[in-house]
Amino acid sequence: MSEVCGSSNRIAGSSFSIYPMSDRFVEIIKSSLNEVETSKVWMKTDDVTTTVRGRMIHVFDVTKAIFLQAAKTGEHVVFQATYSIGCPGDSAGDVYMAEDNLAQNVSTSGLIDQEVAAKFSLYPMGGGNYMDVIYSQIEDMKKRGVEVGEAHYSTRLDGDGNRVFNGLEQVFQQTDEQGSSHTVMTVTISANSPSKKGGK
Amino acid sequence: MSEVCGSSNRIAGSSFSIYPMSDRFVEIIKSSLNEVETSKVWMKTDDVTTTVRGRMIHVFDVTKAIFLQAAKTGEHVVFQATYSIGCPGDSAGDVYMAEDNLAQNVSTSGLIDQEVAAKFSLYPMGGGNYMDVIYSQIEDMKKRGVEVGEAHYSTRLDGDGNRVFNGLEQVFQQTDEQGSSHTVMTVTISANSPSKKGGK
Ligand SMILES: [Ca+2]
Repeated sequence: MSEVCGSSNRIAGSSFSIYPMSDRFVEIIKSSLNEVETSKVWMKTDDVTTTVRGRMIHVFDVTKAIFLQAAKTGEHVVFQATYSIGCPGDSAGDVYMAEDNLAQNVSTSGLIDQEVAAKFSLYPMGGGNYMDVIYSQIEDMKKRGVEVGEAHYSTRLDGDGNRVFNGLEQVFQQTDEQGSSHTVMTVTISANSPSKKGGK
Repeated sequence: MSEVCGSSNRIAGSSFSIYPMSDRFVEIIKSSLNEVETSKVWMKTDDVTTTVRGRMIHVFDVTKAIFLQAAKTGEHVVFQATYSIGCPGDSAGDVYMAEDNLAQNVSTSGLIDQEVAAKFSLYPMGGGNYMDVIYSQIEDMKKRGVEVGEAHYSTRLDGDGNRVFNGLEQVFQQTDEQGSSHTVMTVTISANSPSKKGGK
């Protein structure tokens, strides 16, 4: 059993919600879900959150795609997610670990140009050399045109939605690979906000 | 400086957002903020989140009140927050630690009868005997009529909004007092959802 908690091939998951600030929120959520290929993840939606579980690449691919499809409507849409990997886990989604590593929504997501404002916090709860990881990943994000700043209890990112999501995936993956036995990352990403950046 | 990180009188904070799924979202957020007394907390809003910092009692009092005022509109409103206490901290909100422990919004919040569905996750990152705390606080919540269930990556709570918030405050406070040097709790609370409980 201890190999299930080892450093490779562990099941990742995301508990997330999409919040369209619109009377059409049900339609926006449903049509976004319809546009996204989710066959490589275990997925369950209830009235509070949606949970996806599987290989890390697919968890990020699917959550990114759902958010970008919702944001593409032009409505003010916020995505909030908690990503998690490591023990303790369970077995409901383990069959999805047999999927390959070909992300299914990369090309459709890549077509969506969407500026976003994001905040994330990383909680490595099982050791590892994570501060170096965070700093080096943040430098990588800056090189790709993402603005990085400090906020209370989080790090702020402004830039292209695909680049922001890819940066978040990298920092999460690298933290896991550096030896944190259980890593949690919270993410809030806003698109099409009527508020001006930096305060209202 | 180490006393600032001691077990009593440490500054707590919450980074939160209110998501009214309505074309009237700006009006709902602004009017909710106007109804709430916030003079005992440091508070800052930008285009992604609002941060409140101060004594734990006021951080919960203010966040609960803002959510209940927004939910009172009858619109589908979701509240998402990360509560945090412990090192590392900073000094911008320290002046608010001189406030007394009289919560300012208890009576107005108490007038609002609002069924809610919530999910929370507790991340005690500095030791302490927190599992016993969680179990005993969950038993207390059940006695007060809150339904408790397990969800992926979180614990689900269904019941009266005031009771749910008070239960969350208790579990967070008790975890801190049991010796966790840095505690984070994520909370998602939904009101007036058109989706049926337990799946759609
Ligand atoms: Ca309308």
